Amino acid sequence: MHFKLEEAIEVLERTPKTLAYFLSGLSEDWVQCNEGEGTWNASEVIDHLIEGEKNNWIPRLRFMLQEGENKAFPSFDRYAHLNGMQELSIKEKLLEFQMIREQNIIKLKKLVNPELDLESTGLHPAFGVVKVRELISTWVVHDLTHISQIVRVMAERYREDVGPWIEYLGVLKKD
Amino acid sequence: MHFKLEEAIEVLERTPKTLAYFLSGLSEDWVQCNEGEGTWNASEVIDHLIEGEKNNWIPRLRFMLQEGENKAFPSFDRYAHLNGMQELSIKEKLLEFQMIREQNIIKLKKLVNPELDLESTGLHPAFGVVKVRELISTWVVHDLTHISQIVRVMAERYREDVGPWIEYLGVLKKD
Repeated sequence: MHFKLEEAIEVLERTPKTLAYFLSGLSEDWVQCNEGEGTWNASEVIDHLIEGEKNNWIPRLRFMLQEGENKAFPSFDRYAHLNGMQELSIKEKLLEFQMIREQNIIKLKKLVNPELDLESTGLHPAFGVVKVRELISTWVVHDLTHISQIVRVMAERYREDVGPWIEYLGVLKKD
Repeated sequence: MHFKLEEAIEVLERTPKTLAYFLSGLSEDWVQCNEGEGTWNASEVIDHLIEGEKNNWIPRLRFMLQEGENKAFPSFDRYAHLNGMQELSIKEKLLEFQMIREQNIIKLKKLVNPELDLESTGLHPAFGVVKVRELISTWVVHDLTHISQIVRVMAERYREDVGPWIEYLGVLKKD
């Protein structure tokens, strides 16, 4: 186990600006490309990250700390972001993600005492007993997963353009 | 094929600052963690990116444009960065990467006329005939590969901390 709350927060506070720096001002073709039907483009990934800030991480954390193992927390719709938001520009979305993440980090620091609460437990609707530490670690790795997804989706766009070099380009390897 | 020189440059110019923003000020444990023996940590990935700026992309591009298919370009040692550089801090490395990339983008714009040169060919020591377009696309996807590697390596650190949520975290799936 490696989790330390202050190190987790280091990543959580960097993700929105990192993505804002990377994606702002990019041509629409980069922002709108995906990996084929039913897959997300970079802009939809940002929608999903915003949705998580609104309805997943902090609400679940609060629920866990209040209810413990008494009541399973409501399940989170991982596709909810596909309804709505599409009318915002990527720049507006990135700004919204940044603002809501900042507020959530303030809430996180208020809610969780790292000396007392990390091993507290709650009830996940599918997994059963889970810990506060696991939820916050997952929040961090969820950020990393979606940064990874965005660069993979963008790389896909050049799959044919790279010619024989594809052999050396790990990001284009299919599982 | 999707390659357009100005779109490729959009990514090339964003990578160093994106990584600088993401990695600067992170705890050493994030910067130094890797995926096990023989794998690279984030700091070593930056060394490798700097090495590519010095000895791979622009030198090969220049070589191709000068020699065409007459002479194969020298092979590039993908592990060269593991000798040297280690004494610099990650902040210094990120700054060096940023500066050398800026210079190389200026050189790229001078060397390549997108109307004339993208389909020009050269001789790769292993692949045979390759095109200027393929080399520049590869430069872009190489950036994306290594951003992806850095976030994957960092995610690995929390493999056990996330508990049962590992099931939903694509970045922790092993090939």
